[in-house]
Amino acid sequence: MQNADTTSQSLAHIHAEPPQRDYGAVLFYSEFDDPRAWGDALKANLPGLDFRVYPDVGDPDDIRHVLAWKAYPGFFAPFRNLVQVVNLGAGVDALVGRTDLPDVPISRLSDPGMMALMKSYVLFSVIRYARDIPAFEQAQRRREWHYIHPRPLHQIKVGVLGLGHLGTAAASGLAAAGFDVRGWDHAPRTIADVRCYGADERGAFLREVEILVNMMPLTPATTGLIDAELLGSLPRGAKFVNASRGAVVDEPALVEALRSGQIGGATLDVFCVEPLPDEHPFWQMDNVLITPHLASITVPEAAARDVAESIRRVSAGGEPLHRIDPQRGY
Amino acid sequence: MQNADTTSQSLAHIHAEPPQRDYGAVLFYSEFDDPRAWGDALKANLPGLDFRVYPDVGDPDDIRHVLAWKAYPGFFAPFRNLVQVVNLGAGVDALVGRTDLPDVPISRLSDPGMMALMKSYVLFSVIRYARDIPAFEQAQRRREWHYIHPRPLHQIKVGVLGLGHLGTAAASGLAAAGFDVRGWDHAPRTIADVRCYGADERGAFLREVEILVNMMPLTPATTGLIDAELLGSLPRGAKFVNASRGAVVDEPALVEALRSGQIGGATLDVFCVEPLPDEHPFWQMDNVLITPHLASITVPEAAARDVAESIRRVSAGGEPLHRIDPQRGY
Repeated sequence: MQNADTTSQSLAHIHAEPPQRDYGAVLFYSEFDDPRAWGDALKANLPGLDFRVYPDVGDPDDIRHVLAWKAYPGFFAPFRNLVQVVNLGAGVDALVGRTDLPDVPISRLSDPGMMALMKSYVLFSVIRYARDIPAFEQAQRRREWHYIHPRPLHQIKVGVLGLGHLGTAAASGLAAAGFDVRGWDHAPRTIADVRCYGADERGAFLREVEILVNMMPLTPATTGLIDAELLGSLPRGAKFVNASRGAVVDEPALVEALRSGQIGGATLDVFCVEPLPDEHPFWQMDNVLITPHLASITVPEAAARDVAESIRRVSAGGEPLHRIDPQRGY
Repeated sequence: MQNADTTSQSLAHIHAEPPQRDYGAVLFYSEFDDPRAWGDALKANLPGLDFRVYPDVGDPDDIRHVLAWKAYPGFFAPFRNLVQVVNLGAGVDALVGRTDLPDVPISRLSDPGMMALMKSYVLFSVIRYARDIPAFEQAQRRREWHYIHPRPLHQIKVGVLGLGHLGTAAASGLAAAGFDVRGWDHAPRTIADVRCYGADERGAFLREVEILVNMMPLTPATTGLIDAELLGSLPRGAKFVNASRGAVVDEPALVEALRSGQIGGATLDVFCVEPLPDEHPFWQMDNVLITPHLASITVPEAAARDVAESIRRVSAGGEPLHRIDPQRGY
């Protein structure tokens, strides 16, 4: 419990939140996220919070919590009283391998809104292939009523590569939709209604997958993981969905597999270079659907509750929610 | 329990199915469904069943059960010993208003495979609009990285018109995916996580719906139900998904609403005339996605279990599963 003076105690009954202790200042840094939405959402959970938006840092010694997305090298150096860093997203690849990180707990976001968006993107992409929609789109251009008898969903083998937080959510959502879902991860996993393959069973996993969904985090170990050999291990004509990070894929190998027909179609939200350059071959491939990196975004209203809780916990000497290991990368 | 002679009793322990009683002959009539798949699936549940495929009827007096899809007028007249009719699909509009139906219980199909297919079609169609996919498809043709910040799914209002068996399944699936789901039906309904509107609240229901999914059965009362006035009650730019029957929609009114922008896009699986005629304006509309009536099809392996159970029940003097009222139409 927090200490409180007499005045705030007398007001406590009209607030859902207990009287405010001094958490120190929170510094927000992102060129992508909306600082006002984040400030409002955090203050709704922690009234009176000292929320500062970079570059209006004030006294660097006030800063105890940093919420950052892709902070530049050396960013953290001025903040000597830091107690935690919150990565403003689920993927922490921008933090991996850095030598300038402070020695404080680092956590990532995980909110139900982000999970719902990711699940919806994966469901859309997988159902689109399972229900032969690209063939109907082509038939429509020819004004052709091109009937294809649907396959029962439980006969369609969908594979999820990477069973972390979001990968597990995606796999569970696909299983609930009625697909035959299999998953692979380095670490052993158990997920209801999903057949999980272990580290040394990747070949057996890939051999049967008709639609492969990449949910691997980007780390030095996963860069270029999805290469010609891996794509060649799938049944000919398999479909591919990438909703994690572009650099997990060897893009020239994917282009070649899409041209040869080894991969029958791809739905890609992420790319090695973003925005995807004008001259990239993906743009003109009929069997590729491109979306501009928005499979899953953070919804401040939903994520702020957990961040506020981490501020409370770390200020009280505890651990943040969703802590990650920046060496491991997830 | 069924009577059984001593021989079959001694064998009973090796069969999942109890010894066969004489159910009489089953007659199959459909120009659309596969009689062999149905015969195999039914015999797997009722070994030794006398399964006949029209026109090989044999003695009409043998026929006790008819499985039919769009049987022609007068079809039932020769079968004097009929005890039930099973409609080979979920929609029973081909039976409504007929004066040649036998006075026996009539039921429809309902199987988990059909439900999973329908749910997947509706999820795909709704997520496609919710996640702005048509805008990304257009941007891709221009090689343009066209970012649109996703809206949280729980803020997107999806309305399901018609909360029968499949409509309820669709609404539940959408709610599980995270949408703000509302439903309307003539009859009062209660569905978890779905805000249900009653018969006299249709205006209030339509006023807020951003994506409308039609799941109404086709009956004389619903023919042309979705007309200019109903479409005009939706917010401007609302999307429309039709996965029930074409004739529930006033197609010229929908074409006009799609041209004026009152309806921002439509995903249509069913049409007043099928196959959709070459000259129909839907074919050339950029904001229409056409699929050839396959949102939900019957999977004999999954549906046959219930049909076999109905054969058992009706033969024992009971009620079939999924009985419908052909006057009411559902």
